[in-house]
Amino acid sequence: MTAPFNPSSTGAADLASLYRQGDTDPVAVTRAYLDRIADLDGQVRAYNQVLGPAALEAAAASAHRWAAGRPLSALDGVPIAVKANIAVAGAFWHAGIGAYRDRVAAKDADCVARLRAAGALILGTVNMHEGALGATTDNVWFGRTQNPLRAGFTPGGSSGGSAACVAAGMAAAALGSDTMGSVRIPSAYCGLAGYKPARRAISLDGVIPLSTTLDHVGVHGRTVADCALVAAHAGAVSPRGPASLSGLRLTAPDWRARVDAPDNIWAARDNAAARLLAGGMTLVDADLPDYQPGQARRLGLLVSEVEGLNAHAAQLATGDDGFSAEFLGLLRWGGQQPATKVAAAYQGLDAIRLTGLAWLDIVDAVLLPTAPQTAFSFADPVPANQADFTALADFIGCPAVAVPAGLSPDGLPLSVQVMGRDAATVLAVASALE
Amino acid sequence: MTAPFNPSSTGAADLASLYRQGDTDPVAVTRAYLDRIADLDGQVRAYNQVLGPAALEAAAASAHRWAAGRPLSALDGVPIAVKANIAVAGAFWHAGIGAYRDRVAAKDADCVARLRAAGALILGTVNMHEGALGATTDNVWFGRTQNPLRAGFTPGGSSGGSAACVAAGMAAAALGSDTMGSVRIPSAYCGLAGYKPARRAISLDGVIPLSTTLDHVGVHGRTVADCALVAAHAGAVSPRGPASLSGLRLTAPDWRARVDAPDNIWAARDNAAARLLAGGMTLVDADLPDYQPGQARRLGLLVSEVEGLNAHAAQLATGDDGFSAEFLGLLRWGGQQPATKVAAAYQGLDAIRLTGLAWLDIVDAVLLPTAPQTAFSFADPVPANQADFTALADFIGCPAVAVPAGLSPDGLPLSVQVMGRDAATVLAVASALE
Repeated sequence: MTAPFNPSSTGAADLASLYRQGDTDPVAVTRAYLDRIADLDGQVRAYNQVLGPAALEAAAASAHRWAAGRPLSALDGVPIAVKANIAVAGAFWHAGIGAYRDRVAAKDADCVARLRAAGALILGTVNMHEGALGATTDNVWFGRTQNPLRAGFTPGGSSGGSAACVAAGMAAAALGSDTMGSVRIPSAYCGLAGYKPARRAISLDGVIPLSTTLDHVGVHGRTVADCALVAAHAGAVSPRGPASLSGLRLTAPDWRARVDAPDNIWAARDNAAARLLAGGMTLVDADLPDYQPGQARRLGLLVSEVEGLNAHAAQLATGDDGFSAEFLGLLRWGGQQPATKVAAAYQGLDAIRLTGLAWLDIVDAVLLPTAPQTAFSFADPVPANQADFTALADFIGCPAVAVPAGLSPDGLPLSVQVMGRDAATVLAVASALE
Repeated sequence: MTAPFNPSSTGAADLASLYRQGDTDPVAVTRAYLDRIADLDGQVRAYNQVLGPAALEAAAASAHRWAAGRPLSALDGVPIAVKANIAVAGAFWHAGIGAYRDRVAAKDADCVARLRAAGALILGTVNMHEGALGATTDNVWFGRTQNPLRAGFTPGGSSGGSAACVAAGMAAAALGSDTMGSVRIPSAYCGLAGYKPARRAISLDGVIPLSTTLDHVGVHGRTVADCALVAAHAGAVSPRGPASLSGLRLTAPDWRARVDAPDNIWAARDNAAARLLAGGMTLVDADLPDYQPGQARRLGLLVSEVEGLNAHAAQLATGDDGFSAEFLGLLRWGGQQPATKVAAAYQGLDAIRLTGLAWLDIVDAVLLPTAPQTAFSFADPVPANQADFTALADFIGCPAVAVPAGLSPDGLPLSVQVMGRDAATVLAVASALE
């Protein structure tokens, strides 16, 4: 017996069986999410634009398909939110940048069109860190999105609205984007699963770029299965995973000297490793000895800043209204760096990708914390090292999944990250940790 | 019955059977090459340094192994020349740059060590275009290497000495490096086969970089089989190729509007395509419609120039003696470009790589000319578009083979290039054109 629908606990992958059994229908579910948005989003501020009438209209069509026994897919009638840098036809499409606040997408991004073709309902667009360059979602143009688990705390970013709306029960799942960790970090801070598929497994067509060489589309969901289902219909189809974890090679490298993180972050990782070993995985001692997360993060940031300046060059040529001083400062700083330094950043990231791919050839899964800290107060300084565990998978271009790993002593979600070469394996390992 | 040894016609892959049969031995062969170097290299000027005594000593050891029936490999006793940017322990290692003229390599490059471990003999180091950035091998520090097929004409470059020494019968094969075409162009101009394996299939360890993101080690040989044999022992082992070309998909895109090349260049390509189709391949109409070779070449050149400036930064910090004005001008120009332009070059090359890989997923082999012209006189202006057919395989990082394709009306070698995703397939297709 499936549990009844509850917007704050039912996952995207559960809805199909509820619809099939007639326990509920897409119209009722969509109404429930819209009601919850009406109740809660004044506080959470996850949504930039709620597309209620269009979602209800699509829900009615989906309800007919389910009633006729002809759903388009297991995602038919599943309400999904979309990060504001991903085009939803007819909706505002601004990437959290004030300069684009009046821009309306003429057509869906490739991933959104695919989700719609599978029957998914687009509930609305959600807030993000300005330009996807930052990880607090404290957006000067579109507001500060709260962490639904603790008011006054960041949901993370840049896909903070995506994580917050799912964590608050205001969508069944959400699309985000991840350049150095922007899907996985907010999923970690909000107690969700977050999946960044391999590079370009989900098309960037219709996504306002930060960095064309590092951007990935990803998914926030209540469970790894939710993320995998949405990702598969967005383009990132993975073959069936391993039947068992038995014998798969796990590495859990000791980066305590490389990334400053409190003991409870490491304990959560070590505990997760122990569970995977108890589940049959084999621990192997494999590391990237020369990888320095802080240095590598600076290379990735420089590339993101200069490519971001290229992405917004046409708009900036007309003036810099609608760009915050902070965002513009980062882009301009990147643009002022010497050619040799920029080239060295690309050379460094390329070397990391090559050694990283070789590393992933000798292990099936790498287990690390997702972030060096839990969600923090908007009143606190922003840690510089938020992406120090996540960026590597963007540099390599490999799949990576963040999965909840208990609570910190102060009651905030902990999270661990599984990365590897094969998406189905990575998803299976992450699922085993739920 | 194998033909007797003749330094100007026997290939690297033929020597093993001659040695096995006792028709000749490595010492006699090495002496024959050294005699020929003594006779001809005053004119050709391919060698920077001949390592005669060491080669003869290694040849004697090889001869013992053959006599005992215990050769190390099919490459045992095969005399090979090495481009001057690839480290040969105890030899000058300068990349054709005057500033490094007195630098001696402390140890072999990875690829040279592998060749030695397979029994190959290192005859010496050979001339190159200064810093590997250019394609004439008219080197202000180490001399002008002549095309052995026509005095006063360039052998191409940057691996001009590598191609010239093989074409003149002064080595059985040679190592070169290829950043935008530097193995395939000189092989084309000198009537040889030239093989650039997939990116990093042969390690760059011990190779003076031009561009760490584009450099490849490759091989010049009299035949495709010679190239494949040397490459395999240098690290680029390929699985066995297809038993037949039957049914393999060939594309021969029409780039007449994109690259300015005379009719005889295109006729050689079209004739080669007809031969492959007669051999059972299937013609498919697949192109990279948005690929503009001239634009792409400028992106690759900018990346090479800035990365080249990084490669030589430590030396240049001590002064610019020993760098020609032309070479230094290119490096410095790259270093003066804005960050955004440099980033855009990497972004453009990354997009080319992604679309190129998708292209190579739907065809087994792409057939193009190797160069838009044949070898030209040192008195003529240097064409800007020499690398317009070859650079794409460096950008994609895929295997590519240049193979002779008859003679132009004025008696100079024509060449076609086969590229594709799978090395064994590319080698088999190229072999079918010999």
